[in-house]
Amino acid sequence: MIYQRVALIGLGLIASSMAHAIRRGGLAGEIIGTARSAETREIAREIGLCDRVVDTATEAVQGADLVVLCVPVGAMGGVAEEIAPHLSKGCTITDVGSVKKAVIDAVAPHLPENVHFIPGHPLAGTEHSGPRSGFAELFDNRWNILVPTPGTPPEATEKLRKLWEGMGANVEEMDPEHHDLVLAVTSHCPHLIAYTMVGVADDLRRVTDSEVIKYSAAGFRDFTRIAASDPTMWRDVFLNNKEATLEILGRFTEELFALQRAIRTGDGEQLFDYFTHTRAIRRGIIEAGQDTDAPDFGRGAKR
Amino acid sequence: MIYQRVALIGLGLIASSMAHAIRRGGLAGEIIGTARSAETREIAREIGLCDRVVDTATEAVQGADLVVLCVPVGAMGGVAEEIAPHLSKGCTITDVGSVKKAVIDAVAPHLPENVHFIPGHPLAGTEHSGPRSGFAELFDNRWNILVPTPGTPPEATEKLRKLWEGMGANVEEMDPEHHDLVLAVTSHCPHLIAYTMVGVADDLRRVTDSEVIKYSAAGFRDFTRIAASDPTMWRDVFLNNKEATLEILGRFTEELFALQRAIRTGDGEQLFDYFTHTRAIRRGIIEAGQDTDAPDFGRGAKR
Repeated sequence: MIYQRVALIGLGLIASSMAHAIRRGGLAGEIIGTARSAETREIAREIGLCDRVVDTATEAVQGADLVVLCVPVGAMGGVAEEIAPHLSKGCTITDVGSVKKAVIDAVAPHLPENVHFIPGHPLAGTEHSGPRSGFAELFDNRWNILVPTPGTPPEATEKLRKLWEGMGANVEEMDPEHHDLVLAVTSHCPHLIAYTMVGVADDLRRVTDSEVIKYSAAGFRDFTRIAASDPTMWRDVFLNNKEATLEILGRFTEELFALQRAIRTGDGEQLFDYFTHTRAIRRGIIEAGQDTDAPDFGRGAKR
Repeated sequence: MIYQRVALIGLGLIASSMAHAIRRGGLAGEIIGTARSAETREIAREIGLCDRVVDTATEAVQGADLVVLCVPVGAMGGVAEEIAPHLSKGCTITDVGSVKKAVIDAVAPHLPENVHFIPGHPLAGTEHSGPRSGFAELFDNRWNILVPTPGTPPEATEKLRKLWEGMGANVEEMDPEHHDLVLAVTSHCPHLIAYTMVGVADDLRRVTDSEVIKYSAAGFRDFTRIAASDPTMWRDVFLNNKEATLEILGRFTEELFALQRAIRTGDGEQLFDYFTHTRAIRRGIIEAGQDTDAPDFGRGAKR
């Protein structure tokens, strides 16, 4: 047991997976959960997600030695303001938001000096949302990036690291600016691009939606998985990681224009070279255990 | 048994999967295979992929009542020219290329009048290539688009349709221009975009390749699967479906700029609306049986 009482604020995919993973590892004495929506709380009670589900964040944090903010990035500041006066002295507060600089700016000013704020970001997720979507294995062999704020005692960070390792994750520390840039590349821009491509397909007059759906196995469907992620979460990501996202998108369109030009001028060599060097990254990802080598990710594999 | 003797020219992922699927269904009396590379032919012999593996395309088509061109789109014309004098009278010749207009332009002029040219495109694939990558289930519940050339007798098309259905596929007919546009949307542009994003990530100075690899589970890895496909094949696709690809890329960059602008100006409503309407297509794809609803495509799912 690492923490006595863990309070999960928000009960979506990440929080519900944390509840399962914490139980699997016997990592907390008690898990308290809350969510803004009465329906979400009702489902969480029905499926026995937490030891107790309470109606307000204020109530949830009472006596908790770990508070985890699992709400959309845009809601973090408001929740922090609400719970701040009720936090136990010496408790740790963390979050699971996909951007870090904006979360720190929104949350830190509200917090009392006698708590430890250690922002975090578990790089794990699926295209599903809500309290029923969680499962204990979500974090297994995935990375959680911790971004301790200045002045945080190392032992508080160490304890949080142990919790995440107990849930199956690997833990890395990073400063918030670098986190936001790395994530713009590995997550935010890919999502925006996937959303855009799906939007274009949906919008064409000369190709029907039913054709797009029927023939999606030719590549398109891989984009639709990430373009089906939670819209509120992603809106908040882009509004709160503007700078890094726009920088990477600028690079992306520059490269895309170069390839478009190669297509227009029939420069097969440039295309071939480009398509060859991108294969190495795929191999690296598989070797690092971050994806499966089974064809089509193993979906429907009957081999 | 639908054909007496099927000749597979080229022995990559599609041809090797056809060999397995034809055997599974007992659809041909004999399967003859050939490939340009001696190494590929050697592997095919070693794993017993075909009934016979021969050294040249000319030899392979002798006495075949079905010839399937499974070479890169850019090589189709040359192969057609080579085999044309050796085709049996009344045989059917088809292909599996990802573009159709350019293949017809390259192949049709070489063919004698007494054969039936019925171009085709099975919309199935994985990120793996070569004679060892094939498996019998590749076409199950996937679409094969047939593009019969003018004057093809309906019974020849019907017979080829039966072969594909016997291999597990659904069959649709389409004209070549529409095929190329539909595929630009569902396949060619998604691939180019994925290649571009992977290229950008690979090229950044401030984010290392090892960081990209480590943190790829946050979305990026879905792009790397399709960006690991065969470079020769994809070079040929873009060189041979220039018009439709550039049209769709034009639409894509237009939309991407609109979303970039929404990020820059902080227009959360526009982002949210965009991200919401793209979810419907995902649902359609899952309902149509073209993808799995399991989280992460079911990869590593231990639930």
